[in-house]
Amino acid sequence: MEKTDLKKLLSEMTIAEKVGQLVQLTPDFFLAGGEITGPMQEWKMSKEQLFQIGSVLGTHTSEQVMKIQEMYLEKSRLKIPLVFMADVIHGYESIYPIPLALAATFSPEIVEEVARLSSKEATEAGVHVTFSPMGDHVMDARWGRVLESNGEDPTLSSALTRGYVRGYQGNDLSIEKNRMAACVKHFVGYGAAQGGRDYNTVDISHVNLYQNYLPAFQAAIDEGVELVMTSFNTMDGIPVTGNKQMIQKVLRGDLGFEGVVISDWAAVVELIAHRVAADKKEAAELAFSAGVDMDMMSDSYQTHLAEIVLEKEQQEILDEAVFRILTLKNTLGLFEDPYRGLKEQTPEQLKQTKKELKQSILSISEKTPVLLKNEDNVLPLKEGQKVALIGPKARSQDILGAWSWIGEQEKAISLAKGLKEKDLDLSILAMEDGQNVTENEIEQAIQLAKENEIVLLAVGETSEESGEAASLVNIRLSRNQEQLIHAVSKVNANVVVVLFNGRPLDLSNIVVDTRAILEVWFPGSEGGRSIANLLMGEVNPEGKLPMSFPRAVGQLPLSYMSLSTGRPMHDGNNDQKYISRYMDEANDPLFSFGHGLSYCQFECLDNGISQHSFTEDQTVEVQVLVKNKSQIAGGTTVQLYIEDVVAQVARPVKELKKWEKIYLNAKEERMITFELSSDDLKYIHHDLSMSAEKGLFNLSIGLSSQERSIHHELLYVV
Amino acid sequence: MEKTDLKKLLSEMTIAEKVGQLVQLTPDFFLAGGEITGPMQEWKMSKEQLFQIGSVLGTHTSEQVMKIQEMYLEKSRLKIPLVFMADVIHGYESIYPIPLALAATFSPEIVEEVARLSSKEATEAGVHVTFSPMGDHVMDARWGRVLESNGEDPTLSSALTRGYVRGYQGNDLSIEKNRMAACVKHFVGYGAAQGGRDYNTVDISHVNLYQNYLPAFQAAIDEGVELVMTSFNTMDGIPVTGNKQMIQKVLRGDLGFEGVVISDWAAVVELIAHRVAADKKEAAELAFSAGVDMDMMSDSYQTHLAEIVLEKEQQEILDEAVFRILTLKNTLGLFEDPYRGLKEQTPEQLKQTKKELKQSILSISEKTPVLLKNEDNVLPLKEGQKVALIGPKARSQDILGAWSWIGEQEKAISLAKGLKEKDLDLSILAMEDGQNVTENEIEQAIQLAKENEIVLLAVGETSEESGEAASLVNIRLSRNQEQLIHAVSKVNANVVVVLFNGRPLDLSNIVVDTRAILEVWFPGSEGGRSIANLLMGEVNPEGKLPMSFPRAVGQLPLSYMSLSTGRPMHDGNNDQKYISRYMDEANDPLFSFGHGLSYCQFECLDNGISQHSFTEDQTVEVQVLVKNKSQIAGGTTVQLYIEDVVAQVARPVKELKKWEKIYLNAKEERMITFELSSDDLKYIHHDLSMSAEKGLFNLSIGLSSQERSIHHELLYVV
Repeated sequence: MEKTDLKKLLSEMTIAEKVGQLVQLTPDFFLAGGEITGPMQEWKMSKEQLFQIGSVLGTHTSEQVMKIQEMYLEKSRLKIPLVFMADVIHGYESIYPIPLALAATFSPEIVEEVARLSSKEATEAGVHVTFSPMGDHVMDARWGRVLESNGEDPTLSSALTRGYVRGYQGNDLSIEKNRMAACVKHFVGYGAAQGGRDYNTVDISHVNLYQNYLPAFQAAIDEGVELVMTSFNTMDGIPVTGNKQMIQKVLRGDLGFEGVVISDWAAVVELIAHRVAADKKEAAELAFSAGVDMDMMSDSYQTHLAEIVLEKEQQEILDEAVFRILTLKNTLGLFEDPYRGLKEQTPEQLKQTKKELKQSILSISEKTPVLLKNEDNVLPLKEGQKVALIGPKARSQDILGAWSWIGEQEKAISLAKGLKEKDLDLSILAMEDGQNVTENEIEQAIQLAKENEIVLLAVGETSEESGEAASLVNIRLSRNQEQLIHAVSKVNANVVVVLFNGRPLDLSNIVVDTRAILEVWFPGSEGGRSIANLLMGEVNPEGKLPMSFPRAVGQLPLSYMSLSTGRPMHDGNNDQKYISRYMDEANDPLFSFGHGLSYCQFECLDNGISQHSFTEDQTVEVQVLVKNKSQIAGGTTVQLYIEDVVAQVARPVKELKKWEKIYLNAKEERMITFELSSDDLKYIHHDLSMSAEKGLFNLSIGLSSQERSIHHELLYVV
Repeated sequence: MEKTDLKKLLSEMTIAEKVGQLVQLTPDFFLAGGEITGPMQEWKMSKEQLFQIGSVLGTHTSEQVMKIQEMYLEKSRLKIPLVFMADVIHGYESIYPIPLALAATFSPEIVEEVARLSSKEATEAGVHVTFSPMGDHVMDARWGRVLESNGEDPTLSSALTRGYVRGYQGNDLSIEKNRMAACVKHFVGYGAAQGGRDYNTVDISHVNLYQNYLPAFQAAIDEGVELVMTSFNTMDGIPVTGNKQMIQKVLRGDLGFEGVVISDWAAVVELIAHRVAADKKEAAELAFSAGVDMDMMSDSYQTHLAEIVLEKEQQEILDEAVFRILTLKNTLGLFEDPYRGLKEQTPEQLKQTKKELKQSILSISEKTPVLLKNEDNVLPLKEGQKVALIGPKARSQDILGAWSWIGEQEKAISLAKGLKEKDLDLSILAMEDGQNVTENEIEQAIQLAKENEIVLLAVGETSEESGEAASLVNIRLSRNQEQLIHAVSKVNANVVVVLFNGRPLDLSNIVVDTRAILEVWFPGSEGGRSIANLLMGEVNPEGKLPMSFPRAVGQLPLSYMSLSTGRPMHDGNNDQKYISRYMDEANDPLFSFGHGLSYCQFECLDNGISQHSFTEDQTVEVQVLVKNKSQIAGGTTVQLYIEDVVAQVARPVKELKKWEKIYLNAKEERMITFELSSDDLKYIHHDLSMSAEKGLFNLSIGLSSQERSIHHELLYVV
């Protein structure tokens, strides 16, 4: 449809029809064919109103979408197709590792593939828009929703966010029917929930907001993301869903976003619980004036917006909001094809898609695990080795993780299944998945551990224990699981922990008991197979931590990008009292951002820097010779960090700016080149402008944020 | 001296002499009589420069002050007397309970007495200015410096801050030679150190700054405080000591402060470590331009400021800073009496002062302990009762707490000493103070516990474990102390914990093992005696918690003033997942702000409200009948909280607005009246203005923030 046709359509709409476009409901409302019952009754919604709404979220099948769209188009006056949205977060039916695990690949290309292939499956089921990616900056592992994030580094998160948007949206949504529009969330600050408690108050400075929280959103917008979802939390004391400054000035003004702004689930009506609105009418007025176009699952707009618009003479604002939604529908080609995506693929093509997904998931879930520790190269396992697999995660298929609601858990490959395909002398003692391990089971485990050369302990969280609303004050493994590890380590020196979880855990207590720890996150549908491949050394671990693993929950919030402070701790003063430190624990994490071992031995050698001083329009090249000194092939991520030695605003001691994934054969070496421009030195100033001042910058390069072997000084001359 | 004379003096000063006035050093610099050695040598300081400086901090005796002032006046050209400053935080030689304990009195009058009497002792030793009170807003018990704070409530903290300033400064410093000028600290935000780690980065919004962090400073300024100390931390990314917006706009502009701004210890030179200054010259320039008048213990101003002032043509700013310091000296009457305070009191008067202090300390340290728990009225002890006193704090004299550097620990009354004066069948098993309790000691404790009716377990922190730079990731008692409590509780049902500490601890593990817990903080010089009086019931506990005691370190930061959030937990939904809660712990603290039991049974009965709606210029009276239903006398604090039901900014679910300490005889009852005005409803809006909107406010009254039995609705009509 042409823009003029859209305008014409808009002009034909009644105010009720316009308001309807701004409403998004679940499929339940249509289940009784529009009869006034269930939720419709509760919300005092008329049949007419139902067939004026703009969008549906959370359909489960293509049949459902087909049926609802048909019914809607039949009964609605203007026959503006519904847009269907859903949470396709790390796959639809076929489930990839959780986003935090995908971030461990440090690869925008990989998440782009995830998004592209997930779209293929989801569009076939009628999904037009996914509520993904999540660009929230995170520093607190108590918050279960770090699982959906790209980790603690804004630069990495921005690159990954772009990857997702590219993968979901492709080049032209109106033509590519197997792509979806993306909705970046949660704008903004949600990850800073106080005390790591989900939905809790957020309070940060604007300098921090612009420096660390906005970049991923800017990246998504630059990549053309179609929608932005507002967050539940407050910013400057006002919930973002009712915060005009955040939506109008920051999102639309500073970030230049022109697409659809949608609330999070029921967030408009929750303005009442926030105590900033007295009732649903005030809630609707606040959210609408602030700039929320679409009200997800509350009856605030539906019931009150028409009246508000007339009272406040906000017809123009309403038209703008409706036009953005019509434009989205047009961008998706819905006016021409309201059944977009449905039955697009032949059964044969669909089978091919599923196969492609399975292969992709296997391959990617081999790249997401992080080898945290591997003392004396106890891993990889050797063929024929006598191995015991023990623990609540040994046979568990609960390995998909949160937000895999359509995922087929019963088809997930358990670790036991994956390992049984290998040439091992394998014994298995599986316990029920969860926090409980009985004393009797621990006794059996001890017995089995004594009889075997190596013990694989498969432990961790259930999918209920990480994700949305899964906030914890204690981020250690359950006491029972820790006891199991401890007991087994007393009788067997070769304990390998395979850790399934969705957040950084405090592993201080178990790290001493184990020879190796493989962090496998929630690895997705093919998890058991990929982990088995990694344990056997058929593939080589390459994941790098996208979030620091603290030594204790009391260190949180924590990030490798901490500021120097006026009294920094260093080797020369760590026995002194009046410096910025804890008396009972180190400052640094147990496992730092960027950490991740390999079965190979990699080395980074300095091959020089193109110049030691540079100006705004120049580019500096830094060369690194990466050597694989071992007899096996493998991959790693070489990381370049900068340090702004003196700035107008206190800057982190190290910040990731560039990285490169590299795969090397046995004994292979390869030169890689990092290019730095003045953009990489810019930061947010006190007045929220972005620039860099002349002066010294330290560059360092290595295989993690803590292990950096190459150092250069670089003078920036403005 | 008249203002015109001061101006004349200023006009006679060289630039070096002016810069000198802005420098504050320790007495060490004068120890060699001005010879260039020690720290002077290190700082390349000349003899001439030494005798131009403006101030000395941290002298120990009147003789030292006398000697340095004499030497200085003899050798300096203009003979502008030095002003002597020191940390008189909760007493000088005679030590009161720590400030956090004093806050448990909820009494501005009590802290005023503390400040007044501490001044009497400190001025006699030549102190002119104390670096007290500390007005920092705190929410995080990991930060050891909560010990020096007035707790988590800005309204209470403001009232106490005013009390301190009144007590220190009296009515006229030039006449009252036994008063000191006060320096309120730390401006601003220091208490929000990330992760509770001292000196760490602070990042808060301006709405939060103005609402919660500024009021105590405004209160001190309204009370006429002479100095303000800047804090170590960043605000909006810039250390406050170099933050023009905070000092010039907020402190001088918005809060209207006209006195001397002094840095914290070495904070000017620490701008280099913060990475916002390249060297000492830049550090000096940044701090001076930001508005720091006096450079405490760094050589940045001394070495570089003269040059900077000439380069930047900042003579006028320099003159203003110097004039503020000269004005302070004049306010203190130093030009007329450079030996102010010294030998002001005759030996007889001094003896009387010491006696007065001793009595005041005893009396006040009876009011600071908080009875957290008292199951089945196991306390008070009964005369003749067979009691075992056990634990590392049993005989310890380390009960003065941090910042009692001149305090005479060897004269402090231990709990053993206090209890021995009582009519009890007392056995004592004392251990060395500290975290360690040996297994053998635990065995002995078990034996003794078996033989006695009641066990008093004296446990807690050493003074090294709380206070500045005493940050902890774990805020439980040491494992050994917890084991001691647990072991003893297994053989004796009447375990009473007497807890010595400087911060809220996580007592979840021990609360189940004990019948009673008496929180005595660091109780000061007379600690053992006052605690014995309380344990025996000769006086009745009346302290109320000024900070919440969390259930786990993972809840931090925590305050009773939390916001509602959009998904608040309440009785009706606490079994649901998608609400703002932890999966593994309650949201609320173990012991909440305002909590504190008594041996009496108090009851608050509603006696009505004068009106249910009121306007800006009206006052609402709320009457409460307080009954002591028991047979003994005692005191408590009745607390009135408000809740702004709907506001433009999300407001706390409850906020303390009024309170009254009340003492009742056995079976006595008394009517108390709270007056509320529109000022009590005002809050900081998004644009940082302060006002209240019309609408409903809920009032509630009770004996703690969680136990509120009286409720009123109040409509504010603008």
